[in-house]
Amino acid sequence: MSSALGFIGGTLDRAALKRTDKGWLKDRLERPDSQFVRFFADRPAIRVDDEGPASIAFAGKSAANGSEPVFIGIDDTDRAVFAVQSSEDDAPADETGCELMDLRSLAVQGLLPPQDMGLLAQARTLLHWHSRHQFCANCGARTEIADGGYRRSCPACEASHFPRTDPVAIMVVTKADQCLLGRGHHFAEGMYSALAGFVEPGESLEEAARREILEESGIHVGKVTYHSSQPWPFPANLMIGVLGEATSETLEIDPEELEDCRWFGLDEVRSMLSGDHPDGLKTPPPMAIAHHLIKAVAEV
Amino acid sequence: MSSALGFIGGTLDRAALKRTDKGWLKDRLERPDSQFVRFFADRPAIRVDDEGPASIAFAGKSAANGSEPVFIGIDDTDRAVFAVQSSEDDAPADETGCELMDLRSLAVQGLLPPQDMGLLAQARTLLHWHSRHQFCANCGARTEIADGGYRRSCPACEASHFPRTDPVAIMVVTKADQCLLGRGHHFAEGMYSALAGFVEPGESLEEAARREILEESGIHVGKVTYHSSQPWPFPANLMIGVLGEATSETLEIDPEELEDCRWFGLDEVRSMLSGDHPDGLKTPPPMAIAHHLIKAVAEV
Repeated sequence: MSSALGFIGGTLDRAALKRTDKGWLKDRLERPDSQFVRFFADRPAIRVDDEGPASIAFAGKSAANGSEPVFIGIDDTDRAVFAVQSSEDDAPADETGCELMDLRSLAVQGLLPPQDMGLLAQARTLLHWHSRHQFCANCGARTEIADGGYRRSCPACEASHFPRTDPVAIMVVTKADQCLLGRGHHFAEGMYSALAGFVEPGESLEEAARREILEESGIHVGKVTYHSSQPWPFPANLMIGVLGEATSETLEIDPEELEDCRWFGLDEVRSMLSGDHPDGLKTPPPMAIAHHLIKAVAEV
Repeated sequence: MSSALGFIGGTLDRAALKRTDKGWLKDRLERPDSQFVRFFADRPAIRVDDEGPASIAFAGKSAANGSEPVFIGIDDTDRAVFAVQSSEDDAPADETGCELMDLRSLAVQGLLPPQDMGLLAQARTLLHWHSRHQFCANCGARTEIADGGYRRSCPACEASHFPRTDPVAIMVVTKADQCLLGRGHHFAEGMYSALAGFVEPGESLEEAARREILEESGIHVGKVTYHSSQPWPFPANLMIGVLGEATSETLEIDPEELEDCRWFGLDEVRSMLSGDHPDGLKTPPPMAIAHHLIKAVAEV
């Protein structure tokens, strides 16, 4: 299993200036060496060989029936990369050497290089956005893809719509030699993680993190320190990892949000991280930012 | 002029659990002591007395004709606060003691306490979102306000839509005793600032900051360090301020994005911050995160 944060490490040139160059995009869409990443519902098609997942892109537009292609970028051999959304009903047959694979599982298992995972995250978020934003939120008319997929344009009211990125504050709070972890209602058995929530309108990252912890656990947080960030394409989150210092200790759990939440001694947390917990309690895998936040407080 | 970052410091309890409590909301909407913040197009109505802006909220729903009220939170005297959007045509007459004031100017001048500015940022972003999201992006039907304004619901396809928050990476890059500042085409005369851009699908904050600097200035950035964050309600940004270390020096400016961009010696930057630059060059005011990023590198 890879120890790296998932979906980080894209090496593609996103070539933003090319997005508005219709002639260039048209030419690249037709070139036989252009690369196409294909999603069938939520799962990318991966070419698999005897050693496992081998490649995520397929050459030539003919390989990619489905939605209008979205421009992802230019790879290190100057080939354009596009992504296309298809229905699961059109999934390739087994004999093609392709498999539809779950994006989380791919990240957990670390079977693809980081640059592929970054590319898949970008493609998945963009394609998902297009699939749910075919109409103008301002006037209700059907919109059209523009700028290689980085905009949708309304022919009726002329509004422009841009892909969403939803920032999430995710925080591990400490108090002396304990840290606060919780589990949602749909977590895997025994898993405890950092608490998290969307940043809301009109608040800073730090304000959002404090509010979220207070709402979910009743714990008041003082100092907040940034740790790291991670794109999370389910469907469009930017996870922003922070560490917090609690100024209170008594829990008041929101049962709607959390099934359980408690203070863990750092010794216990270390056993969860290493997979040695006597009751099988565990943390999220290394591909998730929560793992790294928990590790940061446990290894102090 | 206040030296604090603008729009930070909201003290309202957002009371997220009350958003789904229809009975509670209905009761609070009718109470005569409930507070209403009113926006006319982009400008809030502010009650002004001899000393300047005095209060941002008005008691009782009758004071607030306009859109369906959005629930903002509960103040420290247990009064519910709502926000309402009206057309500029319905602006209150001068004799009412109210003025429509520009939100940026209010922040620059620091005439209102931080908690009021945080509340106005929250209200402005939410109201703007509702005004531009009356229809379902998934199916085109007219949507309905839900959860006190923190959701819109589609009666046709049952999709839920949530307010946007658009994360922006804003960065000051340094190289030895110089830092990189630029100016957009519509900046005030003589003003230079940090470069910035939206975080895109499938990239971390750090990846976004590096890409943005490379696209706009041609400069490659190595290490990226988080500094601070700020809500920016024009209309819905979360500014995430970072500092970067350049690994290259030769500029290649994108003329679409920037009118100018160059390396400034830190001595020159200090004179811009203090308003003593011989040619009148300057930085953004202290209410903007760019000011604090520039100050952080200049005062090292």
